[in-house]
Amino acid sequence: MGNSIGKLFKLTTFGESHGLALGGIIDGCPSNIKIDLDFVQSELDRRKPGQSKIVTQRKESDEVKFLSGIFEGKTTGTSIGFIIENENQKSNDYDHLKDTFRPSHADFTYDQKYGNRDYRGGGRTSARETVNWVVAGAIAKQIIPEIKINAYVSSVGELEIDKPYQEVDFNLIESNPVRCPDVEMAAKMEDYITKIKKDGDTVGGIITCVIQNVPIGLGEPIFDKLHAQLGKAMLSINAVKGFEFGGGFSSTKMKGSEHNDLFNEDGTTKTNLSGGIQGGISNGMDIYFRVAFKPVATLLQKQDVLTNDGKIIEQQGKGRHDPCVVPRAVPIVEALAAMVLVDFTLMDKVYRNY
Amino acid sequence: MGNSIGKLFKLTTFGESHGLALGGIIDGCPSNIKIDLDFVQSELDRRKPGQSKIVTQRKESDEVKFLSGIFEGKTTGTSIGFIIENENQKSNDYDHLKDTFRPSHADFTYDQKYGNRDYRGGGRTSARETVNWVVAGAIAKQIIPEIKINAYVSSVGELEIDKPYQEVDFNLIESNPVRCPDVEMAAKMEDYITKIKKDGDTVGGIITCVIQNVPIGLGEPIFDKLHAQLGKAMLSINAVKGFEFGGGFSSTKMKGSEHNDLFNEDGTTKTNLSGGIQGGISNGMDIYFRVAFKPVATLLQKQDVLTNDGKIIEQQGKGRHDPCVVPRAVPIVEALAAMVLVDFTLMDKVYRNY
Amino acid sequence: MGNSIGKLFKLTTFGESHGLALGGIIDGCPSNIKIDLDFVQSELDRRKPGQSKIVTQRKESDEVKFLSGIFEGKTTGTSIGFIIENENQKSNDYDHLKDTFRPSHADFTYDQKYGNRDYRGGGRTSARETVNWVVAGAIAKQIIPEIKINAYVSSVGELEIDKPYQEVDFNLIESNPVRCPDVEMAAKMEDYITKIKKDGDTVGGIITCVIQNVPIGLGEPIFDKLHAQLGKAMLSINAVKGFEFGGGFSSTKMKGSEHNDLFNEDGTTKTNLSGGIQGGISNGMDIYFRVAFKPVATLLQKQDVLTNDGKIIEQQGKGRHDPCVVPRAVPIVEALAAMVLVDFTLMDKVYRNY
Amino acid sequence: MGNSIGKLFKLTTFGESHGLALGGIIDGCPSNIKIDLDFVQSELDRRKPGQSKIVTQRKESDEVKFLSGIFEGKTTGTSIGFIIENENQKSNDYDHLKDTFRPSHADFTYDQKYGNRDYRGGGRTSARETVNWVVAGAIAKQIIPEIKINAYVSSVGELEIDKPYQEVDFNLIESNPVRCPDVEMAAKMEDYITKIKKDGDTVGGIITCVIQNVPIGLGEPIFDKLHAQLGKAMLSINAVKGFEFGGGFSSTKMKGSEHNDLFNEDGTTKTNLSGGIQGGISNGMDIYFRVAFKPVATLLQKQDVLTNDGKIIEQQGKGRHDPCVVPRAVPIVEALAAMVLVDFTLMDKVYRNY
Repeated sequence: MGNSIGKLFKLTTFGESHGLALGGIIDGCPSNIKIDLDFVQSELDRRKPGQSKIVTQRKESDEVKFLSGIFEGKTTGTSIGFIIENENQKSNDYDHLKDTFRPSHADFTYDQKYGNRDYRGGGRTSARETVNWVVAGAIAKQIIPEIKINAYVSSVGELEIDKPYQEVDFNLIESNPVRCPDVEMAAKMEDYITKIKKDGDTVGGIITCVIQNVPIGLGEPIFDKLHAQLGKAMLSINAVKGFEFGGGFSSTKMKGSEHNDLFNEDGTTKTNLSGGIQGGISNGMDIYFRVAFKPVATLLQKQDVLTNDGKIIEQQGKGRHDPCVVPRAVPIVEALAAMVLVDFTLMDKVYRNY
Repeated sequence: MGNSIGKLFKLTTFGESHGLALGGIIDGCPSNIKIDLDFVQSELDRRKPGQSKIVTQRKESDEVKFLSGIFEGKTTGTSIGFIIENENQKSNDYDHLKDTFRPSHADFTYDQKYGNRDYRGGGRTSARETVNWVVAGAIAKQIIPEIKINAYVSSVGELEIDKPYQEVDFNLIESNPVRCPDVEMAAKMEDYITKIKKDGDTVGGIITCVIQNVPIGLGEPIFDKLHAQLGKAMLSINAVKGFEFGGGFSSTKMKGSEHNDLFNEDGTTKTNLSGGIQGGISNGMDIYFRVAFKPVATLLQKQDVLTNDGKIIEQQGKGRHDPCVVPRAVPIVEALAAMVLVDFTLMDKVYRNY
Repeated sequence: MGNSIGKLFKLTTFGESHGLALGGIIDGCPSNIKIDLDFVQSELDRRKPGQSKIVTQRKESDEVKFLSGIFEGKTTGTSIGFIIENENQKSNDYDHLKDTFRPSHADFTYDQKYGNRDYRGGGRTSARETVNWVVAGAIAKQIIPEIKINAYVSSVGELEIDKPYQEVDFNLIESNPVRCPDVEMAAKMEDYITKIKKDGDTVGGIITCVIQNVPIGLGEPIFDKLHAQLGKAMLSINAVKGFEFGGGFSSTKMKGSEHNDLFNEDGTTKTNLSGGIQGGISNGMDIYFRVAFKPVATLLQKQDVLTNDGKIIEQQGKGRHDPCVVPRAVPIVEALAAMVLVDFTLMDKVYRNY
Repeated sequence: MGNSIGKLFKLTTFGESHGLALGGIIDGCPSNIKIDLDFVQSELDRRKPGQSKIVTQRKESDEVKFLSGIFEGKTTGTSIGFIIENENQKSNDYDHLKDTFRPSHADFTYDQKYGNRDYRGGGRTSARETVNWVVAGAIAKQIIPEIKINAYVSSVGELEIDKPYQEVDFNLIESNPVRCPDVEMAAKMEDYITKIKKDGDTVGGIITCVIQNVPIGLGEPIFDKLHAQLGKAMLSINAVKGFEFGGGFSSTKMKGSEHNDLFNEDGTTKTNLSGGIQGGISNGMDIYFRVAFKPVATLLQKQDVLTNDGKIIEQQGKGRHDPCVVPRAVPIVEALAAMVLVDFTLMDKVYRNY
């Protein structure tokens, strides 16, 4: 279970990194939406391996094939099926994993839970799954074109941008392989990742996401609050360890008299420590949040692993992996955010001021 | 929509702070569970207003009345209905809110979304709703008595415990009104909250939660990962702005070679930066996470508010409110964690190594 | 599990016939709906025991108490909690059932499944549960006042009206205790039920339901077809054994050239063997269906029952029961139909020609 | 919405009859189930067009391709993706339908609801969708091999078997193209269908389904009763107009003293008018139900149709269609029944006598 996200705009996915294909079904996409297929592909290309020297050199064309639900360029209101075929599998690279469990990987937990696993390339636990999310996110973005979603890398290891998002030029995000809109910092991050990669090591980082031009009213309290669904979506991404929105953890140190966002007469607020959400419902101000990624567990170093029969052995990491996932995770964060926003946009059509 | 949490152990709730009663229905509670009603009440008492000088002095007996689903002391497998009657409503205290929107409250967003709201005491947005969660959590805890859940206050404003949870004595949590297991720090926090209260101000804080003795295998990837559901549940609590588990945000600064949790031969790990969860599934190690609470928005000071007709006026905050919510939120965090764990425990009965 | 119906207009219920109360929560009711509470009570009165000589003589005031979600006469968009207290329980009447299983009752299956049951008055299996449905149905009707729902008794045992619904005067439905709009036939049915009752026996019957003024477009294929959800709802009523809509079982004997509903130029059809639904979506014509009720299993005769320890003994039926449920089931059929229609009306706001 | 069936064993589908492929995702299939792929294909072959002279002569190989979730012959507990490519599309056959609505088809309602439709071959409304159900049903059957599901044609038009299922030899079902186990009647039905086909007309019929060796306890009251879910599933099949189980509509004419199923000492019953289900839960006796199919709407005759711009014109039906769907619907009925039974089997693992 658990292979679906969303209630009205619902994505269900399948696929292992070394199976024939990954894919998904979008149920609940409204009809009559013009779909720009090139845009979908361009979003996939942003996530694709092999884009730059600092990401995995695996070669995948990652071409999505839509099988239903789009007719003469528009959605029909029926379910949208799609697949992305796997091409560049080097399954032999993973033979050494058949009987071993890597530290901080899901190998062990899947094996214990299911008693059975496709060990090749991580199987279902591989972040290759996120290719499905990017497809659905690219459809979602086309349903709510007025809402602007920009994610970017705000830290890699200890290196971080120390200015608020309001001072960031989103146009610079795609100007460098790190997807950090501070060009100087981006260069430092790139150097650092290159160095980490040479060591066969990995490093974590933080992605900041900003959502602008959001209508007032998205979110369904009590248990489907807008920020709670965004948080859950982000925590679904491989390697994510934390989520905060608005003031986040730093709010805990503040007094109410400092933290409260005083109103302007038009209902906007002078500050926005709330992060654009009050009581689980968007208030029309910018939504912003930060997503914490741990370093990737797969090292291209020697490391102690656990064997099926309960021994610890040393094993050399192999395969093609990212030294730092945050650059490639930027479009993934955006895709999930877009899906959540569409879901609540559809829900709001039902309940808004009936 | 959105008034339900859980898939197999499912709580649906209702209630406004100044209505006749709050309550809920638990659907999916297994049969033949012996229910200790005194325990349920004792959990409610931990959440109750008026327990100490540093919390709101509202008086509510908060007695839960079970209406169905429990027969001769045991659950019957049918839905469990319960109500908690409201007693100490001083609705007149809220007349001034009828036509105004307080900063950083949900007044404005509810009004915009629904075009209609029960303004008395915050209505549905009041944290009084959490009384329902504590009831369901107290039932949940009795389904999984082997799993130990301990939450505690780890920071209030700038004051924080700087030792890991492993060095904390959980027996001291209830020894002081702050629910901080470091007794010296607890005294400082209490003084600080008392001072803040005198100023009519409020302050934020952090709750740490530790879950021990968890079986391997709880969690349903891809989109119902154990930590993602915990995160979503915690982000549902009023005033929560962030969630992190295991290494959390500090993991982002680490290298993989530092962060990876090496195995012991028995499948346990030497470190636990993963926080007891790999790939969304519990690995048998302790689960631990931190929840960030902003300062309560309601101040007993003068503050600018927005009126219905778009003017900014100064208004004196009234009513009985907590200067710092984290002490009373401790049982709420535990209750939600218990519900999430039961939900996955039931799910695991279906899918575990079939 | 299973105590909820609906996806956007969702009712979750609880309650045993001899517990303190029954009740429910409606999640997803739109805001700003004016609620006529007297109408809700009048619908409950139609379902109430003791209305006439041919129904059970149990005395229950069946007063609904709304606890939340309605403020100053209008819905607020938050969840609506309600309870109906039990009053006239004669639990001792059921002591003989503690250790026995009645034929064609759910005693045996509940006991086997849950290993535990509230045997008093049938517990959760009692049709007293339907009081919750009538409350929710009465709210639902007020959301879609333009849609007209009329159910009536079309057969009792072998006695049946042999004219199509188009020739029936719905104004006569409430003119007699059987709720059969053919007054002459109603008198025969009443006599027959009276006779059956004297014998301590029971009898089945059929309810026909007609829904008029339905907008085109309600229903969500593939698996949430309008007629499939209506069918499922009706099959949820105690004692129901069958459901057919439009031509129903008689369609099976027809040729396509006879059965097809030819169009008029305005999109209406000349005949309506389709029963107002094409491909699972309403086509704007009248929806009509028939619901088959078996005779009530509880007889006030001697009957062989099974004991807990596997013996067959003779037992005299006791308690206050209906000799024929169809008259009291009429408002229940309508209530479920109203809930299904509202659910699809809300869904259609999302997906209709976006 | 509405493209999913099941709660724990959940099938979500996509596909139009003239798109690239149909397919689905099974979420919630337990791990470690050995899957016989030849059996899956053999079930598809039972549903396939072109099997005999009395069904549509369209040629489709209907080969299923599994893309995930099965590894080394066993399920892994992850989602199972599959596709069936379309091959024998003659889309030009449907050009005449672009601007017209056929009587008793979903053309009109889809167009009104979605404002957009793939008119080729019925698009999403085509019964070709059921190919997905047969795949999922064939997986489901392998999870519960002990439960025996047999469906057969019991009537075609006025021709019907007049003996109870207990007297039927299920081994004869596949002995003839009609799938009627009464060989003499089967011959008559075949002749009749052949004649109807020559006339370019169609005819309805009834399928009876018998489920044997069902464990006690399947079904989740109140709103997920076993028979209600079976009913809903059957009502999802194209052309179905009615569903009855156990005594069905004939129960309405009976007295309780005739209808009640008296117990044997072992908990079985002497009669089984209940149809193996009490209170929505299986009681261990045979489950049996009947499904009513109307005649197919597409005639290969001239017929009046409605045009997009509101005119009635005469149109000659074209394409390759079944004169009577019941023979090919037999494996579809079984597939849906298998899915429903697996869903409740998994649910029962959670709740059965905890």
